[in-house]
Amino acid sequence: MEIKMLPREEYFKRIEDMKKRFLERNLDAVILVSTEAEPANVRYFSNYWPVFESAGILIPKIGKPLLLIGPETEKLAEDHSVLKDFRKLTEFRESSDPEYPELGRTTFSDVFAEINEGKGISRLGLIGTNIMPVQVYEGIIKALPGKEILRVDDLLRNMRMIKTDVELSLLREAVRIAAKGFDYAVERIKPGMTEIQAAAECSYGVLSQGAEAPGFMIWCVSGKGTNQAISKSRHKKIEKGEMVQISMGAMVNGYIASLGRVILFGKMRPEMKKMLEIGLEANSLTHNLIRSGIQASAVAKEVHNYIRKCGMEDYIVYGPAHGIGMAECEYPFIESISDYVLQENMTFAVDTFLAGPEFGMRYEDPIRVTRDGEEQFCSHRREIINL
Amino acid sequence: MEIKMLPREEYFKRIEDMKKRFLERNLDAVILVSTEAEPANVRYFSNYWPVFESAGILIPKIGKPLLLIGPETEKLAEDHSVLKDFRKLTEFRESSDPEYPELGRTTFSDVFAEINEGKGISRLGLIGTNIMPVQVYEGIIKALPGKEILRVDDLLRNMRMIKTDVELSLLREAVRIAAKGFDYAVERIKPGMTEIQAAAECSYGVLSQGAEAPGFMIWCVSGKGTNQAISKSRHKKIEKGEMVQISMGAMVNGYIASLGRVILFGKMRPEMKKMLEIGLEANSLTHNLIRSGIQASAVAKEVHNYIRKCGMEDYIVYGPAHGIGMAECEYPFIESISDYVLQENMTFAVDTFLAGPEFGMRYEDPIRVTRDGEEQFCSHRREIINL
Repeated sequence: MEIKMLPREEYFKRIEDMKKRFLERNLDAVILVSTEAEPANVRYFSNYWPVFESAGILIPKIGKPLLLIGPETEKLAEDHSVLKDFRKLTEFRESSDPEYPELGRTTFSDVFAEINEGKGISRLGLIGTNIMPVQVYEGIIKALPGKEILRVDDLLRNMRMIKTDVELSLLREAVRIAAKGFDYAVERIKPGMTEIQAAAECSYGVLSQGAEAPGFMIWCVSGKGTNQAISKSRHKKIEKGEMVQISMGAMVNGYIASLGRVILFGKMRPEMKKMLEIGLEANSLTHNLIRSGIQASAVAKEVHNYIRKCGMEDYIVYGPAHGIGMAECEYPFIESISDYVLQENMTFAVDTFLAGPEFGMRYEDPIRVTRDGEEQFCSHRREIINL
Repeated sequence: MEIKMLPREEYFKRIEDMKKRFLERNLDAVILVSTEAEPANVRYFSNYWPVFESAGILIPKIGKPLLLIGPETEKLAEDHSVLKDFRKLTEFRESSDPEYPELGRTTFSDVFAEINEGKGISRLGLIGTNIMPVQVYEGIIKALPGKEILRVDDLLRNMRMIKTDVELSLLREAVRIAAKGFDYAVERIKPGMTEIQAAAECSYGVLSQGAEAPGFMIWCVSGKGTNQAISKSRHKKIEKGEMVQISMGAMVNGYIASLGRVILFGKMRPEMKKMLEIGLEANSLTHNLIRSGIQASAVAKEVHNYIRKCGMEDYIVYGPAHGIGMAECEYPFIESISDYVLQENMTFAVDTFLAGPEFGMRYEDPIRVTRDGEEQFCSHRREIINL
């Protein structure tokens, strides 16, 4: 099995690109932050993914970028990070907040003093404050009294939202593995099995097919649980005649495909069939509308109109697609207020989710926007799966 | 298979206990926060575990506690949370930072205005700022201009660090499952398998034995990777003659057992055997020292002295044990500077980790402190495992 990896030089190109972008805003440096649950920002520039700790990258105007890690992951960082200069800061320490008796106390002040040829920072950009732990933020603020600190998440969003050829090949591979993992699981999931055990089959399926991780905590939910937009498998047993929502992923070198399907054992109630048919129709409509040049909000409105016409307005929870790449869900979104135009090589998960009072349905597949329409990364078993 | 669960009334008792503790500090309310990667704070009082989003609980002086969730998890919260009053705040939104066109904008000000019989908050305690996202913190600050905001993590630490009988029974069950999962995996792991595939066997092992989750992202690392204190499985194949570090967990209703073992296929190099023997000796010494009444730092110093005497001082990374309960690692720690006395029903993972330049070793087992010593939750295969 050949393992697909992003070439090392890509990371350095990205850093240069980011530098160019932040210089246009007269910034002296940016700091971007990731957590264990949301590793994308840091991984995009370094391939490093924090475990138990959080992590950051400081990209200065002049000189080398620094990977910022907590006290316990030096050897992990040496092994995984493309950036070989790192600093250990207690602000990025484990979420359990341990004591570190033997640690020398490097501070953000120390780190800032050594960059930009010793000239430090007058204007700093921050990326990821929506997930940044308060202790990291306070460490930064304390080290820069009287200086300008700006939020510049858009700089990175703009970079990440158009995928390069190599990123697309990683996503295609992730989708291929997710679909294989789905088949593996569907062969094994049976009525009487718990949701947790069913999800374990999905995770095992993608990991044994070459995924580096599931990409998120895969869930299988059944019965009423299927109306949860975001969910978690339970000890509940899967019964015949219940909708079963499978939301699974596969990660390849940081790139995540997610796949959503409904399966059902035994006799399907007519109202379930009706929801699945309307959902699959709304799903097809979304696939058909997507193309370079179309307004994102127009796609959302037309799909929602269709669902409304079918009498299922109350079952709508969110827009018909969301960006996908290094997170299961990332910018940009396709919502009724999304004011931008779809561009070639944006990637989305077409994510049709309907939530009724007694059950819900989700079909989800990643696609790439092309000039005339879309490249479907996966249409495997996008159908009513009655077993 | 009977599923062990914390009785619902336990959560409400905990809330009353917390109230009593914060009233002693003249607080009007506390807010505690969890993330997907670190769910313990919120789960301790509600059984709710955020997915993709973060979450909080507001415990007021007067009236009912409120679960604070992001915009997409209402149905998940209804299903899992023992607390049935919740408020949706965009500050707790998904880490991908989505747009929410259809959402009414509840703010922290709205929430604060409705508690304490409309009298609001003059002194607020915060728990979990080390993991709290900046956007949550800023939402709180903005809603309380000129008011006192204090960090009171110790209030919750003091509650969580002494385990009740029902908590101990959940931990014992988690350990039982982790040990079964270990046996399941060891039967299947073979040279030539990748670390990721080996870890998948461990995860599948605990999930098929009744764990609700692995509790953290289980890792198997081999060769030089074994010297990583915190690690992540790779696509690297496991070879004969290499140390293989297995760090696995099992979670039962929020309580996590973690288990660390080394396995090795084929011929073991003498320097590996030496490290394992010294490590297992240091591990036994830790188990023997632990008892109610002993100073935590005394345990750490004596164990580190032993390792020093064996000429492995440079291989020490941290103290010989850390607290365990609703996080794989939680307060209190046993480090050379830990200034407290071990008490009955504290629970620890005795975690012997030695990191050499070419390989490392970890043996880890959870225990409970008793009056005269310790209750070993697991000593299963705490030995040199040469396969």
